[in-house]
Amino acid sequence: MPAPATRASHSRHAAASLLLACAAAPAAAAEAPAWFPSEWGVQDQRGAANRITPERTLAALRLAKTGRIHSLAQPFRSDMPIWGGRSFQLTIPHADEPPSKNALTANLDFVAGELGQVGTQLDGLGHVGIGDLYYNGNDRREFVRRNGLQRLGIEHAGPFVTRGVLVDVAAYKGVQRLPPGYEVTAADLQGALARQKLSLREGDTLLLRTGWAQLWKSDPAAYTGNAPGWGPQACEWIVRQKPAATGCDTYGCDVVPNPHDAAVLWPCHQIMGTQAGIYNIENLDLEALAADGAHEFLFVMTPLPLVGASGSPVAPIAIR
Amino acid sequence: MPAPATRASHSRHAAASLLLACAAAPAAAAEAPAWFPSEWGVQDQRGAANRITPERTLAALRLAKTGRIHSLAQPFRSDMPIWGGRSFQLTIPHADEPPSKNALTANLDFVAGELGQVGTQLDGLGHVGIGDLYYNGNDRREFVRRNGLQRLGIEHAGPFVTRGVLVDVAAYKGVQRLPPGYEVTAADLQGALARQKLSLREGDTLLLRTGWAQLWKSDPAAYTGNAPGWGPQACEWIVRQKPAATGCDTYGCDVVPNPHDAAVLWPCHQIMGTQAGIYNIENLDLEALAADGAHEFLFVMTPLPLVGASGSPVAPIAIR
Amino acid sequence: MPAPATRASHSRHAAASLLLACAAAPAAAAEAPAWFPSEWGVQDQRGAANRITPERTLAALRLAKTGRIHSLAQPFRSDMPIWGGRSFQLTIPHADEPPSKNALTANLDFVAGELGQVGTQLDGLGHVGIGDLYYNGNDRREFVRRNGLQRLGIEHAGPFVTRGVLVDVAAYKGVQRLPPGYEVTAADLQGALARQKLSLREGDTLLLRTGWAQLWKSDPAAYTGNAPGWGPQACEWIVRQKPAATGCDTYGCDVVPNPHDAAVLWPCHQIMGTQAGIYNIENLDLEALAADGAHEFLFVMTPLPLVGASGSPVAPIAIR
Amino acid sequence: MPAPATRASHSRHAAASLLLACAAAPAAAAEAPAWFPSEWGVQDQRGAANRITPERTLAALRLAKTGRIHSLAQPFRSDMPIWGGRSFQLTIPHADEPPSKNALTANLDFVAGELGQVGTQLDGLGHVGIGDLYYNGNDRREFVRRNGLQRLGIEHAGPFVTRGVLVDVAAYKGVQRLPPGYEVTAADLQGALARQKLSLREGDTLLLRTGWAQLWKSDPAAYTGNAPGWGPQACEWIVRQKPAATGCDTYGCDVVPNPHDAAVLWPCHQIMGTQAGIYNIENLDLEALAADGAHEFLFVMTPLPLVGASGSPVAPIAIR
Repeated sequence: MPAPATRASHSRHAAASLLLACAAAPAAAAEAPAWFPSEWGVQDQRGAANRITPERTLAALRLAKTGRIHSLAQPFRSDMPIWGGRSFQLTIPHADEPPSKNALTANLDFVAGELGQVGTQLDGLGHVGIGDLYYNGNDRREFVRRNGLQRLGIEHAGPFVTRGVLVDVAAYKGVQRLPPGYEVTAADLQGALARQKLSLREGDTLLLRTGWAQLWKSDPAAYTGNAPGWGPQACEWIVRQKPAATGCDTYGCDVVPNPHDAAVLWPCHQIMGTQAGIYNIENLDLEALAADGAHEFLFVMTPLPLVGASGSPVAPIAIR
Repeated sequence: MPAPATRASHSRHAAASLLLACAAAPAAAAEAPAWFPSEWGVQDQRGAANRITPERTLAALRLAKTGRIHSLAQPFRSDMPIWGGRSFQLTIPHADEPPSKNALTANLDFVAGELGQVGTQLDGLGHVGIGDLYYNGNDRREFVRRNGLQRLGIEHAGPFVTRGVLVDVAAYKGVQRLPPGYEVTAADLQGALARQKLSLREGDTLLLRTGWAQLWKSDPAAYTGNAPGWGPQACEWIVRQKPAATGCDTYGCDVVPNPHDAAVLWPCHQIMGTQAGIYNIENLDLEALAADGAHEFLFVMTPLPLVGASGSPVAPIAIR
Repeated sequence: MPAPATRASHSRHAAASLLLACAAAPAAAAEAPAWFPSEWGVQDQRGAANRITPERTLAALRLAKTGRIHSLAQPFRSDMPIWGGRSFQLTIPHADEPPSKNALTANLDFVAGELGQVGTQLDGLGHVGIGDLYYNGNDRREFVRRNGLQRLGIEHAGPFVTRGVLVDVAAYKGVQRLPPGYEVTAADLQGALARQKLSLREGDTLLLRTGWAQLWKSDPAAYTGNAPGWGPQACEWIVRQKPAATGCDTYGCDVVPNPHDAAVLWPCHQIMGTQAGIYNIENLDLEALAADGAHEFLFVMTPLPLVGASGSPVAPIAIR
Repeated sequence: MPAPATRASHSRHAAASLLLACAAAPAAAAEAPAWFPSEWGVQDQRGAANRITPERTLAALRLAKTGRIHSLAQPFRSDMPIWGGRSFQLTIPHADEPPSKNALTANLDFVAGELGQVGTQLDGLGHVGIGDLYYNGNDRREFVRRNGLQRLGIEHAGPFVTRGVLVDVAAYKGVQRLPPGYEVTAADLQGALARQKLSLREGDTLLLRTGWAQLWKSDPAAYTGNAPGWGPQACEWIVRQKPAATGCDTYGCDVVPNPHDAAVLWPCHQIMGTQAGIYNIENLDLEALAADGAHEFLFVMTPLPLVGASGSPVAPIAIR
């Protein structure tokens, strides 16, 4: 059912599409496609996670041949690379000793920080918008509240159990890691896939390897500086492959700075996330996966249902 | 390799075993078994998660026949039931608007609270001890530090991809939910398993359903009050089944109060966790799983590698 | 110097004045006074704290005759009355023991919460606005940032060392405490002052006693429910007395609910704070002060210079 | 009334005294004075703040001749110098817009960090101990709890309204600021006081200026490195002057490293705080005060009554 009162008008819609179109691909402005309502209906809050059907999950489970599990999460530490003035602090509280005959003792953890957007984390559909408009035309003025988003919270995502495909562009380009500011193109993705003898399927999780995770521990300042990543054309191609999620081993996956126009920020977040409803995982560690030659695998990720959060810390795994 | 300087002496060991033995099962004091070093070696920090082998993972993956996924996590909200004076607060920060041509906007989340020990969460091996002694004889005076445990942190657990078995004691007893203070016995577990025509295998994750999750939203105060749960004899039986993890739908899984001696607190945390290295999941929502008649399934849980934390929030899933 | 680019236009100004005027005092709409630039200049960020001159401070210091100090702050506890979904959690971290020959041990405190707006606290000029307009016409779209207000932060307030006047309306009305929803009028304030044989002077801090602090410990739920407080007419009278600050013993000082129109929220916050630049202190404990018969005194309050915060926790004192 | 069950035995007392005596001043070991019960009685939790009597407060108030106020607090920012792995994060939450006819808008602040021990802050009597023993012989095993100290919390301190004396050792030594590792001696304090033609009186607040505040903004890393400060002999002399509080413009006031023995950590914290019950203020900004030639003044500081905290952020003032 449409909910006219809580949906942006057609004129705002057209304006926003035009705005993004102009920014990202000027020539396409005249034919800017409508990006909402989404293909999953005007009330949908789950986006591309809808592509994770029991059939695809079952097929993905069949990809595992050895049961060997790769953890793709970076360790969460207060001194890890954190972009954008965010923070993460873990404190062990004093251990109270309740009186007991069995000498019970216990430790807890107190965590404070921008939890859904630090460390290895999943961007939900409430994270990035085009002006006031977010996925499926939701207007942030109507859904953002102090103690949580009233629509598009990460609790709507659900679990991801899908075919995972590592697109190892660093290996394709024959480098240890892509240089800062390198724009990964659609041709790069296609070339890397061809080298790996794989193609993408609807509902997949596509993981881009740039090699950037090598800097996580060794050089946190470099990690959060200029970085390789995909550009708008690559992302438009990705959208057409219909993945459920994407991910990469940098802090934002978009190339930084944007080589087309440094004043257009994180365009892929809007193209893939806001418009196409695709989830994005950041700060993955893909080194061991690549070293193992794992290009196609069972991918599992279970976001925390933090009600009203824009994202979630995650610890995704790949199983071969 | 032994590390004598960081291991408790035999006399402390014996004393602690005796203490627990006296508290939990007086008659067994004379034959108190040594509980460390653990069966996985004196340096092991992973405990029963070592039982999750590629072979068992692969076998568990084969259990899925339909690809239907059940989420077992309760939603994380600041008004959820929280036991023990802990807290959870989610705040959406003001959205800064970086100047951009593409009208980029974004929301973040700020979380503060005892994160590893609220909501649906996994107890790690650094959570509960017997006096100063924790899993594998680690002495908390040597490993607890203000910004994280230096041993036994949850980052050592790794992912859980195992056979999952729901032991539906509420259904076995023919009640909507077990009453407060009801002690689940080994006979109850065995009876429920027999009714379900299932037996446990090494490396499984055993999930006890009491029906308590029904109170999560409807009566948070009742949820965190006296609760059903397992008692020491049941837990000793569980230890002998060699699971990787256990879990339940209450806030602590131990019966509260302890009907044998109210001054013996959380004995199963010590019997299964501290001594046997078995991980325990609390505050699960097992209602939909039970309603679906799912008793045996692929279980997946991926703790966040919060370095030095005593536990982790988790969003486990069951796949049939 | 005017800063046209960062100031609201005249039309917005007029509209906002009209809006407030209509809401709070319909008859005055035609003559709605311009409320910015403020009397302290278009760039001023300090408001009525400018009234605290060395001369007035010196005169206030001379009011003390005995040196007896009254603390006016309520104790900060996690179970104190907290209005509006805010939070306060104090945790004592585990005490690390650095190796030392002198057996040094130490405790710290970890605090998380809406610190400037819980407990006994001072509202700064960045706390409340009329639409986008805040004190001195500052537009929140231009100064609110995720990690702090870029204008009107509490660090601009400076210390308050002024004459303090307790206006004991509960005593004037002959009640233990004013009832919930009781509107303190200008006549009440004037009557209480006459009874106390005192008049207000420019630069004073005016403290309204309703008796509400009696509920702080005994009935936290009642404390944060409907409450007595001042109404718009009283506040317009207060503005004309030119105080530096006001304060009271409830959680907001405005009467709740607003008896004139329940849909007009916290009008005194706008009349005194936003428009007149007067600071307001909430959750004071005025019981001992009143019991001591202290109506005129040296008042000292030193807000924490939390850069970019909307307010500060405070522990004001009165010295006789 | 003595409380034998909650007080350390004489033997522990003697041992601790000996330990500190050996560490700080070997020759004095034979005559190690008993340091508890304190001169204010066995139950006292307020220490040297007891010296702030109405008479002394009144006399201090008379010191103000001009009404000019100096703020002595450093601005609290997340990028300020923070020693010891502590943290401070201020977040402005999203501003919810409650529906109102008067267009009410409001900003809040969310703060997370080791609040009582970062920025300009006051060490309470529960902050530092000698082994398990704290001020007045309180045993930390009996009073430290996860959600607050059950004795010696900063809420016992009360307000400080005293004579303040700036001891400008940097000026006395004719340097812009004392060098890192410079030990301020009793002779330095006495020489600086003689130069200033002042002597100390019981109940004073003594503020040591090293000039270190000059580095607060300009070089945060240098600020928290090796620093000038007082040594044990100076502190023993200070104890004999019977101040209520001391303070300085470095992060710990003790000289770092300890030139007598680098393995004896923060000895003045134990000599002045633990044993003598004197409060200590850290991270003061004394530059403007010194530039104004203010050596004797009215000093006011009002710690927040954070129940059970080891310290409090403060914004002390000096009035001439």
